[in-house]
Amino acid sequence: MRQDSLHSPAELLIHIEQAIKETKYPSQPASLYEPISYIMELGGKRLRPIMLLMASELFNGTVKAALPAAMAIETFHNFTLIHDDIMDNAPLRRGKQTVHKKWGTNTAILSGDVMMVEANKHITEVHADVLKAALDTFNATAQGVCEGQQLDMEFESRDDVSIAEYLNMIRLKTAVLVGGAMKLGAIVAHACKEEADLIYQFGESLGIAFQLQDDILDVYGDPEKFGKQVGGDILSDKKTYMRLKLQELASADDLNQLDGLKHDGDKVNKVTALYNTYNIREEATAIMKKYLDDAFAALEKISVDNSNKEPLTMLANQLMFRES
Amino acid sequence: MRQDSLHSPAELLIHIEQAIKETKYPSQPASLYEPISYIMELGGKRLRPIMLLMASELFNGTVKAALPAAMAIETFHNFTLIHDDIMDNAPLRRGKQTVHKKWGTNTAILSGDVMMVEANKHITEVHADVLKAALDTFNATAQGVCEGQQLDMEFESRDDVSIAEYLNMIRLKTAVLVGGAMKLGAIVAHACKEEADLIYQFGESLGIAFQLQDDILDVYGDPEKFGKQVGGDILSDKKTYMRLKLQELASADDLNQLDGLKHDGDKVNKVTALYNTYNIREEATAIMKKYLDDAFAALEKISVDNSNKEPLTMLANQLMFRES
Repeated sequence: MRQDSLHSPAELLIHIEQAIKETKYPSQPASLYEPISYIMELGGKRLRPIMLLMASELFNGTVKAALPAAMAIETFHNFTLIHDDIMDNAPLRRGKQTVHKKWGTNTAILSGDVMMVEANKHITEVHADVLKAALDTFNATAQGVCEGQQLDMEFESRDDVSIAEYLNMIRLKTAVLVGGAMKLGAIVAHACKEEADLIYQFGESLGIAFQLQDDILDVYGDPEKFGKQVGGDILSDKKTYMRLKLQELASADDLNQLDGLKHDGDKVNKVTALYNTYNIREEATAIMKKYLDDAFAALEKISVDNSNKEPLTMLANQLMFRES
Repeated sequence: MRQDSLHSPAELLIHIEQAIKETKYPSQPASLYEPISYIMELGGKRLRPIMLLMASELFNGTVKAALPAAMAIETFHNFTLIHDDIMDNAPLRRGKQTVHKKWGTNTAILSGDVMMVEANKHITEVHADVLKAALDTFNATAQGVCEGQQLDMEFESRDDVSIAEYLNMIRLKTAVLVGGAMKLGAIVAHACKEEADLIYQFGESLGIAFQLQDDILDVYGDPEKFGKQVGGDILSDKKTYMRLKLQELASADDLNQLDGLKHDGDKVNKVTALYNTYNIREEATAIMKKYLDDAFAALEKISVDNSNKEPLTMLANQLMFRES
């Protein structure tokens, strides 16, 4: 029987937004702390903390006990956005100026640093009997995300990235944080190690599927609904799964054409046409579904009533059939 | 009676160097982790972890129990050096290329980030019954250091920095880390809160005195013995205690002369002459001694046998009467 105490993602979002609003940073030095409030209030779907709270509720944990971990994950995630935007020289984030454009690179580095400390402060607020386990998972997650970002940067200047390397990079850069968030939810709900590892597997596999779906939407998304510029990955020659698969399958002639498109004004359409020729969308969808199957297989193994898994199953399906 | 188990700073240094050598980082991505080993092995006096271990021994703690906290502090300190060097655009650190010069700014940002995670991992290795207290002190320390760096950067473009603001900046940027290190040493040795706060006060006051001494040596140090360029602060118009005190005391004519020295080839000698005219060295020495007195007053109040305080007293005096 499904617990009555399960909250919907929309209800959990309200708890998270409330906790963000209630988090107080020191007032001085203003230019150190203003960027933290700024990026935390830029919005976003708050998917990671929502999934952390859902994982906690799956194991009968309370929102209250899980909120410090949820805040730690959301604060850490936003810290990585500040530093990633410096490294990517990105002018905009969610339609607004990035922190380094608004306050300068030095302040953005340092605000990010102190934001990581704020994330660390949140995680210390979990119950004492799960503190060490929560810290271990939080630190391993943070480390993985840094490794993923480093690999992502390195791949830009490499011509020999394999599909396996790409999948490992998105695992580290994106999926480890989803898995880590859900494992933290399980830990603060006092789930046993095996169950915590299974929900981690669910989150990590879902995170990889999510990123592959993002890669597909970047090419095939509806420009009216997709939040970013369609074809952005193609324009920047990003070595996504789709691009690497095309390079694997394309004829010598098509590979030559691809190499010649560097600054072609019609590059997006021409590369998309090559994707169509080689059924790259179907290839990418198939591997995305494989990861989604892996995710559900892990969820299946968790020993709680199936009806309690419904909210997570629903959310996962929504994420996979989204248009933005 | 003095305990036989007290180690000298030189003996403690051996433990720290050994622990640094034994700390293993992942091998991949190499460019993420190589900078960490690089900066950790550049050397330095390891003063902060030594003082942490000495604080721990003051309260009968063992080196073994205190080493994780000592490694956390030294790792955190070196992380701040990587990021500070980016912000200061510094080409050299301890006579070697800085991380951002050697590996590029983006890798230096990210290596710093993952190094902070490594510091956080070290601190989780303290005994479970002091974990929360150690984390609280570690995070408060890290936060203070970031605030100090931000103030230091802001002061560069401000003309109205007061002496009180300068003292607060060096307190945050330098002294909080010394105090925090010693408080961590007390915490892992299970000292009570009052004793831990007293050793913090000792460390913080000593840290401020140390920085004031550094400012004095920057002007009056023996070029043969002082590690850095004598007059560096004068050349960069750094708003040190000495400079701010001169601005407070100097006549209108002398202030005009000072303002006109921007790119004067003999700037160091001319500003030093003004310092001599207004007895600025004596002023700085007096306030340095006041902080040193505060440090010893706090140490005095700690309820352990006076003979056990000897190593700390000796080290503090050595630091204050150093030439480099």
